[in-house]
Amino acid sequence: SVNPDLASERQTASFSVEKLTALLDGGTEQTRIRRAVVEAIESDPVFSRENQYFQTQNERYEAAVRKAVHLQKKMHEMGWTENGPEYKYIYRALSGDVAFLLHRVFMRSISVLGSDKQIAQWIPLATQHKLIGSYAQTELGHGTYLQGLETTAVFDTATQEFILNTPKISAMKWWPGDMGRSATHTVVFAQLYIHGKCYGIHPFIVQIRSLQDHSLCPGVIAGDIGPKMSFEHIDNGYLLLKNVRIPRENMLSKFCEVRPDGTYVRQGSQKINYFTMTTVRISLISDEVLTPLMKACTIAIRYSVVRRQSKLKPGEQEAKILDYQTQQEKLLPQLAAAYAFHFINDYLQELFNRGYREIQRKNFDMLPELHALSSGFKAVITQHCTAGVEICLRACGGHGYSLLSGLPSLYTKILASCIYEGENTILLLQTARFLIKCFMAADAGQPVPPSVTYLAAVKHGKCPAKNKLDFLSPDIYTEAYQHVAVRLTSSTAAKLQDLIQSGVKKHDAWNQCTVQLVQAAKVSKIYLLI
Amino acid sequence: SVNPDLASERQTASFSVEKLTALLDGGTEQTRIRRAVVEAIESDPVFSRENQYFQTQNERYEAAVRKAVHLQKKMHEMGWTENGPEYKYIYRALSGDVAFLLHRVFMRSISVLGSDKQIAQWIPLATQHKLIGSYAQTELGHGTYLQGLETTAVFDTATQEFILNTPKISAMKWWPGDMGRSATHTVVFAQLYIHGKCYGIHPFIVQIRSLQDHSLCPGVIAGDIGPKMSFEHIDNGYLLLKNVRIPRENMLSKFCEVRPDGTYVRQGSQKINYFTMTTVRISLISDEVLTPLMKACTIAIRYSVVRRQSKLKPGEQEAKILDYQTQQEKLLPQLAAAYAFHFINDYLQELFNRGYREIQRKNFDMLPELHALSSGFKAVITQHCTAGVEICLRACGGHGYSLLSGLPSLYTKILASCIYEGENTILLLQTARFLIKCFMAADAGQPVPPSVTYLAAVKHGKCPAKNKLDFLSPDIYTEAYQHVAVRLTSSTAAKLQDLIQSGVKKHDAWNQCTVQLVQAAKVSKIYLLI
Repeated sequence: SVNPDLASERQTASFSVEKLTALLDGGTEQTRIRRAVVEAIESDPVFSRENQYFQTQNERYEAAVRKAVHLQKKMHEMGWTENGPEYKYIYRALSGDVAFLLHRVFMRSISVLGSDKQIAQWIPLATQHKLIGSYAQTELGHGTYLQGLETTAVFDTATQEFILNTPKISAMKWWPGDMGRSATHTVVFAQLYIHGKCYGIHPFIVQIRSLQDHSLCPGVIAGDIGPKMSFEHIDNGYLLLKNVRIPRENMLSKFCEVRPDGTYVRQGSQKINYFTMTTVRISLISDEVLTPLMKACTIAIRYSVVRRQSKLKPGEQEAKILDYQTQQEKLLPQLAAAYAFHFINDYLQELFNRGYREIQRKNFDMLPELHALSSGFKAVITQHCTAGVEICLRACGGHGYSLLSGLPSLYTKILASCIYEGENTILLLQTARFLIKCFMAADAGQPVPPSVTYLAAVKHGKCPAKNKLDFLSPDIYTEAYQHVAVRLTSSTAAKLQDLIQSGVKKHDAWNQCTVQLVQAAKVSKIYLLI
Repeated sequence: SVNPDLASERQTASFSVEKLTALLDGGTEQTRIRRAVVEAIESDPVFSRENQYFQTQNERYEAAVRKAVHLQKKMHEMGWTENGPEYKYIYRALSGDVAFLLHRVFMRSISVLGSDKQIAQWIPLATQHKLIGSYAQTELGHGTYLQGLETTAVFDTATQEFILNTPKISAMKWWPGDMGRSATHTVVFAQLYIHGKCYGIHPFIVQIRSLQDHSLCPGVIAGDIGPKMSFEHIDNGYLLLKNVRIPRENMLSKFCEVRPDGTYVRQGSQKINYFTMTTVRISLISDEVLTPLMKACTIAIRYSVVRRQSKLKPGEQEAKILDYQTQQEKLLPQLAAAYAFHFINDYLQELFNRGYREIQRKNFDMLPELHALSSGFKAVITQHCTAGVEICLRACGGHGYSLLSGLPSLYTKILASCIYEGENTILLLQTARFLIKCFMAADAGQPVPPSVTYLAAVKHGKCPAKNKLDFLSPDIYTEAYQHVAVRLTSSTAAKLQDLIQSGVKKHDAWNQCTVQLVQAAKVSKIYLLI
């Protein structure tokens, strides 16, 4: 039975709920698929999350492994596939509370960075779950500064192997999901050395645990990094390598190859090695960022309808807290943002799919733009949605603070998205570097990439709004944001130039402008989003 | 041995660290006492927090009880007293990770609201820990709207007892600390009924567990409300009462009394019953709000000195992240705020001590002002410090997200301070109600309380800053904030009047102005703080 306060609110909808549902899902067929998946998952006791908040970290991990294994059977039984339309609904229905998620990133790394031969060798093994993959990039001493990673991979021409080492404690891999207890294989990012010369960061497939008894391979030390703010079910891990030898064929070599004699051959940009990150940054928006905001809005708004507190009108029944202006001011903008980001997301995915296809054809022209866009969008959207979930939590008062409301775990999980796959401030500065470069090019009359052509069209007009009703027009906002984006970029570029001309060294000048640069990058992304 | 990067930063201090320490502590003698306390606590293995992040909720609770019991012995052994200068340092050194904290609120309620006879009866028992006290105000259905509490206390003239009942599920007491497993007694807030007439909310001392075997008393159902975002060590609980009888003498009766024949006698304002909250709101600022921000700043700034990431200058060693402008922009304002609030806190405590002394003398004149000030300051300071801790956490990237950094638990704990002892939006609206009332009085030429005299001195001048250097003068900010505070208050008052004159009902008009009212209350408190 539905709470009467909830039922009465639902009756007042001015639109067809079923039509909107189909629109959000992308068609009635998608809605049908989603509902079938949700029904199948929710009716299966193995997938129950009922006691999760009373479980220890270890119990959470074991449940997540149990679910992951059961999910494989279930998918087979239901005829669902990893690349089928059901997958995103499965993930959503499970709230991501399942093990072996890095397995997909492992596969994506091989698909993006591996040669056809490597894809043919590893992807079937991974698809059949004959191994459990992970992705080992971040080290204890290095997260955002990838060039500074310290793990080494030295090519030994005599044996045709790479020898991997963790030269010091700060070089220990730290944070990789599924690494602490689960993974048998991982993609290790390491500095490639051939004949004593360093060729920078490259990805290597390394087996870390036995396929027979799951014991650690010789030379491998790995384990769990301990408790975090959320993700109790994931065994984020550490990894130390001591003279671990892997065959030459294990360096992912779609774009870079080491020939048997040690000759190094590169096709395209060195930066292509970071491209897995670029694609992950965009694909996480839907599952890890928008869904939590949508769930938080749903919980907080429903609660605000059934919770009655204090009296709006003397002598009457206590009012639904949603009827208070302050509660509406908290929640409705979050709901609006969830819709806006949902529809923008389709556009972002399409943009990146197009770029991805080009890069697979070894056309790297879009790489800098895709990197800047994915970095900026990831930072702005995660930031906004994280703040939104926090507002929803606080808007439910004490009951929002109980783990049983679901809001604390939505918050502690989405908060991580501001840090992982690139810390937001660093990402915004990378976007800003691209913006400044494009602004200088535009200023010099050179062509600029499509997403920043607005930088060339600097207008010095005033705000066209004449009275308060004009602020109901979306065009006013688009124009205002464009104006601010161009102005912040141009004024920061001017400040940079001034500093350099006054004798400040280039890197110092850059550092002295970074607070403004972050601001310029944020506004430019918001402008593109609206 | 100290990390060399930390050591070199410490050598660059432009002030005497020892002098500043003494200034913060309130004198060298205080520093000596603090250091002795910290030394005694940290060297005692019972107080160790080493494994806390690996413990279950139950283990955390048991450890907190163990510490609370051990602390009593330790205090006796060391000659420390509950009201002595050591107590605040003990609490800080334990990070509040100790059981029976509500015992102090129980005692404070009796001291503030109890008659001399009640104080003489209960305080010695509590001081000697012959009972464990709690404070049962909030119910499942009512938090902020105290008038809506549903627990009943019916006076029975025949037996000279109050009969306490939880008439329905929403009337169940919910959240009280130490209630789930620990407390033997509690102060229950309930609607007083005499001869069928309701006299509103009053406080009653109720025994809920046996002093012999700790079993629940007849008619009492109580337990733990389950996991929360933090406070794993506290057994926040629920409480249902079924015809629980307590003697007439158990209603706290400094200000209100029920005579044997059922005659109700009140001295002073009914609102005095909420005064425990008012005093708790101010006293929590130091221990629960400022200390976490100070700790978070210390952790994040130290980390920023030892963490090196990326290069500021090409060819050089990687830079300390504190040397990046963006990192300074995140952390230094939080550090400055921690100092500012620390020094303001002394002033607030003194203001409230003065008010408290007046009220004990049954002079209630200051009550509305103290209520408005404590509500507003609590909301503004908790809000600011919570945001500050979150910034510190995010500024440490992935390592800040590890529970072992200490930052996640500082955040999840301080976040609760925005909700408990009055949800911040509600508190700001109560402040706003006081402001509007005072503004109308000032407007009509009537006298207003000292803290709002500025409302009478409306100036319509322009900002006196003539160039950017003027913004280095604090007076400019004080004047600007005063201007904004008056302007927001006056414009909202005008909007309220307009709405009412145009036929909108008073309560609807109020609701339509609440977003602006919250803004006005915030700014007015910031103005008073600077």
